[in-house]
Amino acid sequence: MSEKIYVGVDVGGTTIKVGICDSEGKLLGTYEGDTEVSKGTDAILHNIAKYARAIVEESPYEWEQVDGVGIGIAGFLDIPAGYVKFSANLKIENTDLKGILEQELGKTIKINNDANVAALGEAWAGAGRGVSDCVCYTLGTGVGGGIIIGGKIVEGFASMAGELGHIAIVPDLEAIQCGCGKMGCLETVSSATGIIRMAKDAVARGDRTSLSQVENIMAKDVVDAAKAGDEVASRIVSRAAYYLGKSMAIMAIVLNPEYFIVGGGVSKAGDFLFDQIREVFEKYTQDQAKEGVRIVPAVLGNDAGVVGAAGLILRG
Amino acid sequence: MSEKIYVGVDVGGTTIKVGICDSEGKLLGTYEGDTEVSKGTDAILHNIAKYARAIVEESPYEWEQVDGVGIGIAGFLDIPAGYVKFSANLKIENTDLKGILEQELGKTIKINNDANVAALGEAWAGAGRGVSDCVCYTLGTGVGGGIIIGGKIVEGFASMAGELGHIAIVPDLEAIQCGCGKMGCLETVSSATGIIRMAKDAVARGDRTSLSQVENIMAKDVVDAAKAGDEVASRIVSRAAYYLGKSMAIMAIVLNPEYFIVGGGVSKAGDFLFDQIREVFEKYTQDQAKEGVRIVPAVLGNDAGVVGAAGLILRG
Repeated sequence: MSEKIYVGVDVGGTTIKVGICDSEGKLLGTYEGDTEVSKGTDAILHNIAKYARAIVEESPYEWEQVDGVGIGIAGFLDIPAGYVKFSANLKIENTDLKGILEQELGKTIKINNDANVAALGEAWAGAGRGVSDCVCYTLGTGVGGGIIIGGKIVEGFASMAGELGHIAIVPDLEAIQCGCGKMGCLETVSSATGIIRMAKDAVARGDRTSLSQVENIMAKDVVDAAKAGDEVASRIVSRAAYYLGKSMAIMAIVLNPEYFIVGGGVSKAGDFLFDQIREVFEKYTQDQAKEGVRIVPAVLGNDAGVVGAAGLILRG
Repeated sequence: MSEKIYVGVDVGGTTIKVGICDSEGKLLGTYEGDTEVSKGTDAILHNIAKYARAIVEESPYEWEQVDGVGIGIAGFLDIPAGYVKFSANLKIENTDLKGILEQELGKTIKINNDANVAALGEAWAGAGRGVSDCVCYTLGTGVGGGIIIGGKIVEGFASMAGELGHIAIVPDLEAIQCGCGKMGCLETVSSATGIIRMAKDAVARGDRTSLSQVENIMAKDVVDAAKAGDEVASRIVSRAAYYLGKSMAIMAIVLNPEYFIVGGGVSKAGDFLFDQIREVFEKYTQDQAKEGVRIVPAVLGNDAGVVGAAGLILRG
């Protein structure tokens, strides 16, 4: 039992999920506990350490086998320093996460942005296994992103790389303001929130659509209506797909990744969505930059975060 | 004299430029000779080898000190293999450039795209010296690009990364077709060719502009007219700057480089152009992604190619 293991921690606003991976990214076990944000920073850090120890204790592995603990966290980070500048959903600021947890756990700690970590999970041990360069999208409430080049996360000068949701891609005349304050971000049209907003706008202005019968419109309702042939819903889903495909065309000529990996709730629309993305990508991408390039669904689901966090130790 | 030196070769359609650099990227000497494209592939490869030997022979250095020879070349390449799939301006295809020249010169050979190589030159030993992550634009006949992450060129899955001129950034309704066949590429508006086309279009449709007096409009004429207050010329230069700035806003949130380095003939417009680019960049880029980020002019001029080619040996 001298094989090394890697602990990944996915710190969410409600729960902290921890997992153990082997050196190939195989998930050997997971554990979930409350984040307890209301108890403050010290409690959250204590919980991270506690759950990291717990998952190992409950496993057939020994703590000595742990080569390091990787942590995915939403917020503004100084990734190389392992420092949390500000995390809105955890209410943590100016915290030396790496330093404190290295002291508490006696292991190498690496931290990274939650979307980057999910991307690394998919690239390392999910849909992109064996692929060196991937661009990953997570279509949820927002549009998260992560860029993997040479098997590693691109972090950027100020730890701000990979924010694909904030590519300014909608032309000025059609752009609306994003939550980030800027105009025309991809997230305003291709996230669940964007899809719901476009649907509510359509209903509010009296467009003839089956969605006007839906009480609390969710992104899935819009996708389902589009699949059933509702023209208004179809236009909305096509718009979401259009800007995703166009952003991928840009990524293809800028980074020329082998895989685009798309996950998150909205991606569950499946081929209905993917086919439209692929069509736009095909239209706007130069032949040499799309040759052999694939747009594929993510496969790890909610495990991508812990797997990628564990991967930070080997790939961070 | 046991210090290592690095030979860089910039293979153009008319001339081959070679240079010697030290390990810091300091250019120790250059030499230029005819490419002799009309004599065919063998002659071109022979000339590359001949000029590489010549620059070292004429220098105070010994051939034994040469650690490797880097080559920048325009065309479709397999960069890791050192293979030229097709180069239109050299009329070379399916040629094992690396293999042939390693045999002829007895040194490590690395090849890369000419725009990537120029970017590496600026990042390694030019405007970006000491900076890990740079995105470089060359505004010439086209818009060339190169992306440097962690001091190294991003090559891409099919050696197609960094083609910033082919970002599909002009909205469909205003887009025209690019030389690459796609619609709305950055190159259609922000290259010298794009600027000249917009000026000629304006003159042809009878816009009132001083440019209608110019016989053979060059990009510099348009910039000069804009600086002199010509409204039509100003609109054209602003449009070129707008899409450059917008593309940088996308790069900032995707890659978050520390420097954007802008070179090539059009960049000689100086602050008149740079200030407009910076204004658009400022408008479209999220605060955290632009903090400390600089948009700076290239400094190596035509030497960027040989310096970057030499840099391939250490940074390729």
